[in-house]
Amino acid sequence: MEQTNRPTVIRTVDALREALAPTRRAGQRIGLVPTMGALHQGHRSLMDRARAECDLVVVSIFVNPRQFDRASDLQAYPRTEEADLQLVADAGADLVFAPATDEVYPAGFGAEVRLRGPLVETLEGAHRGSGHFHGVTTVVSKLFNMCRPDVAYFGRKDAQQALVIAQLVRDLDFGIRIETCPTIRDPDGLALSSRNSRLSPSERQRALTLKQSLDIAAELVAGGTTDPETIIAAATTVLSGVSLEYFALVDPRTLEPVSSIDRPVLAAIAAEVGEVRLIDNLTLLP
Amino acid sequence: MEQTNRPTVIRTVDALREALAPTRRAGQRIGLVPTMGALHQGHRSLMDRARAECDLVVVSIFVNPRQFDRASDLQAYPRTEEADLQLVADAGADLVFAPATDEVYPAGFGAEVRLRGPLVETLEGAHRGSGHFHGVTTVVSKLFNMCRPDVAYFGRKDAQQALVIAQLVRDLDFGIRIETCPTIRDPDGLALSSRNSRLSPSERQRALTLKQSLDIAAELVAGGTTDPETIIAAATTVLSGVSLEYFALVDPRTLEPVSSIDRPVLAAIAAEVGEVRLIDNLTLLP
Repeated sequence: MEQTNRPTVIRTVDALREALAPTRRAGQRIGLVPTMGALHQGHRSLMDRARAECDLVVVSIFVNPRQFDRASDLQAYPRTEEADLQLVADAGADLVFAPATDEVYPAGFGAEVRLRGPLVETLEGAHRGSGHFHGVTTVVSKLFNMCRPDVAYFGRKDAQQALVIAQLVRDLDFGIRIETCPTIRDPDGLALSSRNSRLSPSERQRALTLKQSLDIAAELVAGGTTDPETIIAAATTVLSGVSLEYFALVDPRTLEPVSSIDRPVLAAIAAEVGEVRLIDNLTLLP
Repeated sequence: MEQTNRPTVIRTVDALREALAPTRRAGQRIGLVPTMGALHQGHRSLMDRARAECDLVVVSIFVNPRQFDRASDLQAYPRTEEADLQLVADAGADLVFAPATDEVYPAGFGAEVRLRGPLVETLEGAHRGSGHFHGVTTVVSKLFNMCRPDVAYFGRKDAQQALVIAQLVRDLDFGIRIETCPTIRDPDGLALSSRNSRLSPSERQRALTLKQSLDIAAELVAGGTTDPETIIAAATTVLSGVSLEYFALVDPRTLEPVSSIDRPVLAAIAAEVGEVRLIDNLTLLP
């Protein structure tokens, strides 16, 4: 039997601090699962991991306008709070922190937390603009300070974001452990994403070719092919009815392009399917 | 009798966290006095305030290269660690955190915390370049995360910096109380500054005219003069043998110029005396 009580929903930073104070005073472990809502089983897997490891689990739900490069994308981003609260309750998380936009960015707000270097400039940084990751590192810094968790959980589906967050924690000394959890997929292979709900049935069929292209690359690498150009050419031929932004083979830690595949490599893809932008990735082992 | 034991000196972030853990677990109050060393009675007044209000007082000593706009200024900045430790011991502070530069900025460091808006763009921001306050907000964010104090103490001599830090704490939700303490002056009126040790006797005489200019402005405002131009013209005539960067009459909270003085106003001055750049300020009451 899964738990079906509605979790406690908190809307303000002050109330969050108050709710967390007893746990903190008791020296117990606080886990944070930061989300933009429209929760799915990928988020659920993060909550399950947090529930197993922490005394108190906070799920934040905040669609962060500062990390969207396009107003249309922000507006179309799915918002499903009632269903989200049920999923959080089922996962047995303790608190939902779901602030309004002006609680996070009140009038006069003027701070920005940014990283420099290849981690934020390549792949998503190059295609969505540098403002995307500045928006991510700013809101995550705020959430970290609001919640002061011991551990925070992110999904490997956003592999670059997880690396960026890890560098943020290192560079600014947050003293928070970052756990990156495996991508969860539907049985047909599609990586779970809040954006999938916007796909029509035919778009969904086309979206499957993203994972298929990653699988082809994985097979080639496993079979001994070492030349990135050969692999990318073969992998991208399977894409059908999607508008490719990038298919890249990069170092899994630095995200810099590799010239020959003699170690594990990250294959990362971004493509638009209709009006929905999707990303996926896979670690390829020679 | 003042205490003369040498304080505990900590060089690494890990050791700092370990040293603070018991105090934090006990729910006791931690106070941080961030400094760049070359400590004087202005710093001492911050430590005294922290000692009176907190269970554990940390004094950080770190000459932050990222907030210096000129390499020559960074190189010339006084470093007097042995004397600093004696002053900290006399003040009864508990811990000195004095990390090396590469402990704070290790290889691969790439983060920056910045504010936007008039607070960082005017006065010091305009004259030292925007990088100055970005350097301040970055290192202070790091020190806050390393130490996680309940309260942090800054001097009003750096009035703009104190306002910038207050906005940083608000915007990024640090949950730290900022206390700004009065400027301490020598009997002749010179505001205490680590840079004063670099003044020759004749430069020191000239440096006194900064405070004299502020006093003239204060007298005019107290006497009913309301026109900023009139006040600035009269105040700056007393400056002698110094190279004025700015003399400004601004709103004490926003630092925006005032057009008529009908409320308390901040008079702020920056000037070079020989090769030493000095700042000072005074709140003027009509």
